[in-house]
Amino acid sequence: MPEVKPSLANQHNQQLANVLPSPIRVIDAEFSEIAGLIKLTLGEPDFAVPEHIKQAAKRDIDNDDSHYAQPAGHLELREAISNYLVNRFQAPRYDPNNEIAVTVGASEALFATMSGLFNPGEKIIIPTPSFPMYDAIAKILGLEIVGLSTAPDYRLTPEKLAPVLEANPDAKGILINYPSNPTGVTYDEAEVSALAELLGQRDMVVISDEIYAELCFDGPHTTMSKLLPEQTILVSGLSKSHAMTGYRVGYVAGPQALMQHVTKMHQFLVTTAPGPMMAAADEALNNGLQDAEEMRDAYQARRDIVQSGLEAAGFTVARPSGAFYIFAKIPEAIGMDDMAFVRDLAKEALVGVAPGLIFGEGGEGNIRLSYAASTEDLEESMRRIQAYMAKKLQA
Amino acid sequence: MPEVKPSLANQHNQQLANVLPSPIRVIDAEFSEIAGLIKLTLGEPDFAVPEHIKQAAKRDIDNDDSHYAQPAGHLELREAISNYLVNRFQAPRYDPNNEIAVTVGASEALFATMSGLFNPGEKIIIPTPSFPMYDAIAKILGLEIVGLSTAPDYRLTPEKLAPVLEANPDAKGILINYPSNPTGVTYDEAEVSALAELLGQRDMVVISDEIYAELCFDGPHTTMSKLLPEQTILVSGLSKSHAMTGYRVGYVAGPQALMQHVTKMHQFLVTTAPGPMMAAADEALNNGLQDAEEMRDAYQARRDIVQSGLEAAGFTVARPSGAFYIFAKIPEAIGMDDMAFVRDLAKEALVGVAPGLIFGEGGEGNIRLSYAASTEDLEESMRRIQAYMAKKLQA
Repeated sequence: MPEVKPSLANQHNQQLANVLPSPIRVIDAEFSEIAGLIKLTLGEPDFAVPEHIKQAAKRDIDNDDSHYAQPAGHLELREAISNYLVNRFQAPRYDPNNEIAVTVGASEALFATMSGLFNPGEKIIIPTPSFPMYDAIAKILGLEIVGLSTAPDYRLTPEKLAPVLEANPDAKGILINYPSNPTGVTYDEAEVSALAELLGQRDMVVISDEIYAELCFDGPHTTMSKLLPEQTILVSGLSKSHAMTGYRVGYVAGPQALMQHVTKMHQFLVTTAPGPMMAAADEALNNGLQDAEEMRDAYQARRDIVQSGLEAAGFTVARPSGAFYIFAKIPEAIGMDDMAFVRDLAKEALVGVAPGLIFGEGGEGNIRLSYAASTEDLEESMRRIQAYMAKKLQA
Repeated sequence: MPEVKPSLANQHNQQLANVLPSPIRVIDAEFSEIAGLIKLTLGEPDFAVPEHIKQAAKRDIDNDDSHYAQPAGHLELREAISNYLVNRFQAPRYDPNNEIAVTVGASEALFATMSGLFNPGEKIIIPTPSFPMYDAIAKILGLEIVGLSTAPDYRLTPEKLAPVLEANPDAKGILINYPSNPTGVTYDEAEVSALAELLGQRDMVVISDEIYAELCFDGPHTTMSKLLPEQTILVSGLSKSHAMTGYRVGYVAGPQALMQHVTKMHQFLVTTAPGPMMAAADEALNNGLQDAEEMRDAYQARRDIVQSGLEAAGFTVARPSGAFYIFAKIPEAIGMDDMAFVRDLAKEALVGVAPGLIFGEGGEGNIRLSYAASTEDLEESMRRIQAYMAKKLQA
């Protein structure tokens, strides 16, 4: 346990210091101390990786796939990604050779994309509430973040987007995410099309994080890459669709002129992704569409439990059409801000949820509940929350 | 195959654009086109991962370790790293809880360290010839690189280091690497101690990349972390010691005051490393010391083949005491620079080696040969090189 030389104790990246440590994980760690608490804080599927996918990873290990893969990843996996995106979402046919890069989860995909394409001081629009890592990476890179609150219904519309675009004609990019973490909101083809039309009038890179694309409950997913291919960088991965979070396989697809920089940056970040985990992803995309459907159906049933449960408890919820989150407005009568509320709920009702303010402007006054949990835990949580709310609202 | 919107074709990180794509891989790709060529360009062990390590990874997959690990990695692995460093190298006992982070290979370890600890414009000393990624990452981060050529014997000594330190009292860090890629040079305890004493007089972070520590042929490895713990950030990994390049497991260890920033940066880069690959690393460190020894002995025998082979062919070699590279000076009489030479050698003698200039100042006029290749290929390469040289020197 070496002590640092005192003169070095303050040597660190100043931009990084301005970023809070992942706030969801801080809250989650706090709640881990409370005995008997049901934690619905993290976006972590409770499913296991399907057996045939595990077998594929094990076969790959047996086959000694332990040498460096190409920087952009196994070519077979890039081919599988290209085919999957066309067949499943009618995306453009991305060239596996130079328009797709396999990354270490969607996290590295986002970092490689944002650091590969933008320069310090350049403006990027990040609609909120959103995944806190977007804001963090942009800050670390010294980008100028342009906010855009989608409250109160948490839907990004041309009406909300147009004035921000007009006020920021020099913005170089926008980072959108649907189905949304933390709101569960998603868009149908007409809605995506309206956004694409507006964004198509601007010279702006559209980073579209569609990691929850397989988890759409009320209609098919429409990818931005289909409607605005010449401006879109598509970010996705296997973590949510196949419960493969711990395998860390993500990807980026886009026009070669942009992807050359993303792939180059990726190479300097991690060299390449681990081979056996890529083999698992290859199997998931080639032979695992059914798995994603089964998980989606399970999440949908859980969505119904928490939506009706929270509405019965007095919350107003954004229509949760995808992902595995529900974003719910705390009734005014409760008289607590969301941070105080989630701490009180954890202590009194033994249910852990995330406070809305950590997802940025517009999130305050809400809770985010992740329903990537067992049906039993969700039903018990609803009973606890309803009892707690009844008591509070009576008082 | 979408075409980019023409107005976006030039949207990219300008610092990144100043960095060449990995030059070793460019050369390697060029040589891949030549039929019958023996490639000795990349630093890629030809061994397979030992069977018990593969079994550990497969067991971990079977045990459904497919959820997010803690950001710094499996705690058991961090404990194994801490114990290994103490037992094997008498390193300080790093606290697994906050002084060690598991990364996606040593590449990500370097990126997380350099981006976590330094700010644009800050000076970092990078002795050369060195692994080109050091220079690339420093450039991407906007650091000011202070050069220090270790030619002609490629040993970093207090005599070479002192004037550079004096001329740069404001340097915030230095990045050293031993056993060295590309030269194979390493240092005994007295030599490391002399460097540590000099560096200890400065307020400077010492990033010590010791990824080849298990591959020392002429004496034990001395870690900088033992001699200068209060300033050292130790970077290492399993890629070279256990032929696990494709599994991508590296790590960083250092005083908590510095590690907190490295670990935080790591989290924003990749969230965490993949679980099954960490389980493999855990097994390697707990039960695989013998594997590393066997590989070292094999490399040592190959080192002898290429050292005597190249000397017989007329090259002057830096004493290659570690890693699996030999750095050899092209005889003046050949009359070609190293880039022309390696291209001619590839075409005429069907042996692919890397030109010294891609490793930075002091490297020009040399070749780097990686002897992480089969004994048969190395023996045949020596025959080809000797025949080629005899012909050239006769002409």
